[in-house]
Order: sequence, then C-alpha cells, then structure tokens
Amino acid sequence: MRLAELSAESGVAVATLKYYLREGLLHPGRTLSRTSADYDESHVDRVRLVRALSEVGGLSLATIEQVLEVITEPGTDRLHVLEAAQRTLVRAGARTPDGADGGSTQRVRDWIERHGWEIDPMDPFIDDLARAWEACDHAALGLDEDRMDRYAEHVEGIATVDVSTVPEDPEAAVRHVVLGTLLVDPVLVALRRLAQQHVSRRAERVGP
Amino acid sequence: MRLAELSAESGVAVATLKYYLREGLLHPGRTLSRTSADYDESHVDRVRLVRALSEVGGLSLATIEQVLEVITEPGTDRLHVLEAAQRTLVRAGARTPDGADGGSTQRVRDWIERHGWEIDPMDPFIDDLARAWEACDHAALGLDEDRMDRYAEHVEGIATVDVSTVPEDPEAAVRHVVLGTLLVDPVLVALRRLAQQHVSRRAERVGP
Repeated sequence: MRLAELSAESGVAVATLKYYLREGLLHPGRTLSRTSADYDESHVDRVRLVRALSEVGGLSLATIEQVLEVITEPGTDRLHVLEAAQRTLVRAGARTPDGADGGSTQRVRDWIERHGWEIDPMDPFIDDLARAWEACDHAALGLDEDRMDRYAEHVEGIATVDVSTVPEDPEAAVRHVVLGTLLVDPVLVALRRLAQQHVSRRAERVGP
Repeated sequence: MRLAELSAESGVAVATLKYYLREGLLHPGRTLSRTSADYDESHVDRVRLVRALSEVGGLSLATIEQVLEVITEPGTDRLHVLEAAQRTLVRAGARTPDGADGGSTQRVRDWIERHGWEIDPMDPFIDDLARAWEACDHAALGLDEDRMDRYAEHVEGIATVDVSTVPEDPEAAVRHVVLGTLLVDPVLVALRRLAQQHVSRRAERVGP
C-alpha cells in the first residue's frame, strides 16, 4: 500500500508517518520510485505500536525508539529477557527527578526481605517503590507494612498472570514483557477504579 | 488564630488563603471585626486538603470546589462520597483526547456483565478500560477475556484493601479515596515490576 493508504489504515496523518520514517520509528517501505514506496501490514502494526506506546504508555518518541531497539535486538536469550525489558522500563518510567532518601530505600529492602520476595537488592524499582511509598506517607494515607503485604499478595497474582503469558521465543518475549508491562498498567489502573466501585457497592448492600 | 497564623500553620501564602476564601474553597472564620476573623484547626485541615488535592492529586481549583461541595453537603452517605471522589478522578485523569470506539466500549460492558461486577454502565472508567484494552490489542499482546478475568480477580483483591481502609468520616473518606487512588497507583506499578522479577526467578528455579 502507498503512504496515503497506510495513513488511512492506521489513523495517523501522513505528515506524522513521514516524521516516524525520518526518526527511524518506522522502517522504510519497499522503494517503488524516487518519491514513492510500498508499505505492508508490518508497517501498519508498527505505527499502531508507536501510537499505543505514545498515547497509552505516555512515552516520549525518544524512549519509544529505545523500546523498539530492545524488542527488535537479535540474539537476546530468554534469561536476559527480563533484565533487558526492565532496563527499558526504567528509562521509560523516569518521571520523578527526586530520588528516595536512603531510609525509605532501606525500608523497602527490609520489607521485601521480610515479605520473602527474591529481588536483586540493587533493582531500580526498589527506589521507585520507596518514592511512591514516601509520597503516601506525606499524604498520611496510613499505608503501613501490613497493608503493603496485602497489596503485594494480590500484585503477585497479577505478576503470575504476566509471567505465565510470556512467549518462549526470546524476541517475542522481550516485546511481550516491555509492551505488556507498559500497556497493561493502564488496564490495571482502570480495572482498579471499576473494582473499587463494585466492591463498595457490594459492601453497601451487605453492610450494616 | 489570625490569617497570618493560618498561613504559617498551613504553609500557604496569605494571598492564596484570601483567594480560597473568596472562591469558597475555605469556609469563613468567626468575624472579629470588619477586617479580621478568627480561624481554627478546621481551617488548617481544609487548607491542607485543598493543597493535597491540588498539588498531589493534580486537580484544578474548579474540580476541588466540586469535591468540597459534595463532602460538605449534609447527609452525604458513604456510597455517594466514593462515587463523587471517582468522578473527580475521571476529570483528574483526562489524559487521552480520543474516545474508545463504540465496539470496544460495548466489549467492556459485556465483559463486566459476564464477570459479574456491579458497575454503572455509563461509568467513565469503562471508556478508559476500553481504550487501554484496545491498545493491548493493537500491540497483539493476546489480552483476551480469560486473561482479563484473571487480572480482574486480583485487582478486586486490591480494591477490597482500598475500600476496607476508607475512613468513616465523609470528608476524610473523600481525601482518602482521591489521594489513595492517585498515590497508590505508582506503588502498585512498582510492586508489579518487583513481583514480576520474583515470580520469574522462582519459575526459573523450579521450572523444567
């Protein structure tokens, strides 16, 4: 298909597609002449992926480029899939400029040990969790270790679903872990709002 | 206390406090003279709430006014408080300009009904979920209804923890729901990354 058709198929303006091509976010089509090229389903898929990462995942185009690099990197073995994916996710999630203070990070490490999770103590998400937990403390939300344990138990169930659906093929696996983690976050956020409504309505009905 | 003391106590500038008073975000103090009034702890709490909703929750002052209206309305029952807080979160979370298409929204409504959740069919988070699910489809993540059921089961556990920790007092409840929903999201996101690592390490160890 020509660029205009790719635009119609993907819902992305021709000017934006040209920008994607220039930036290497979209692989070139098969050259037909000096001014035209032929695009196929792989281009439609890629454009939809870039859109999803940008609009739903909220990633910058520079970050999306890094994500695409990781998921198309040849020769990644399955053992390194998660680490590669996590490195990308760390870059993607760099939202907060402030680091957590040392005390908060240590609290998370202690909590993880007590909770029995097998985690690299230098994992960058420990710092993310420390910062997020600190913000809850500042807002006096009463998020203590006991409630963290209860959340963690349910989140472990979610992670079990995540891991069980990772494909065997390494390239597909990296793609799945990176995209699945980023794009399923908004699904879980929306589900949480809906579940809160369901749970509080049910509580109203059966409550005192 | 006088306005200057309320400013010192709450960390909010006098000019801002006067603005809050004019806009009705802060209830008037007890009149002492034509130019001065007396403020108490209820004013300190209210100013802190407005600040938290504005700075941490990212809400506009117009939205905050609507939340305050609901929580100060006499006879507000617990269910309405939670729903008002959720409406507030919808406005706060208005990120994506595009709506989901009608088919996606209907798929979510059908899934909710089949799953047995008691949700207002016009709930705006249905549209959020539809968009997020659609993005997963575009990325070919294989997020089918069965996997959505498994996620939903665990998220319902999270929501049960959320709802069980909501305080009885309506004003405290709205504060807790709005801030708890917004600030606990990043906690759950970080926990999911850590849990994925734990679950896949455990699977590597016990796997074939």
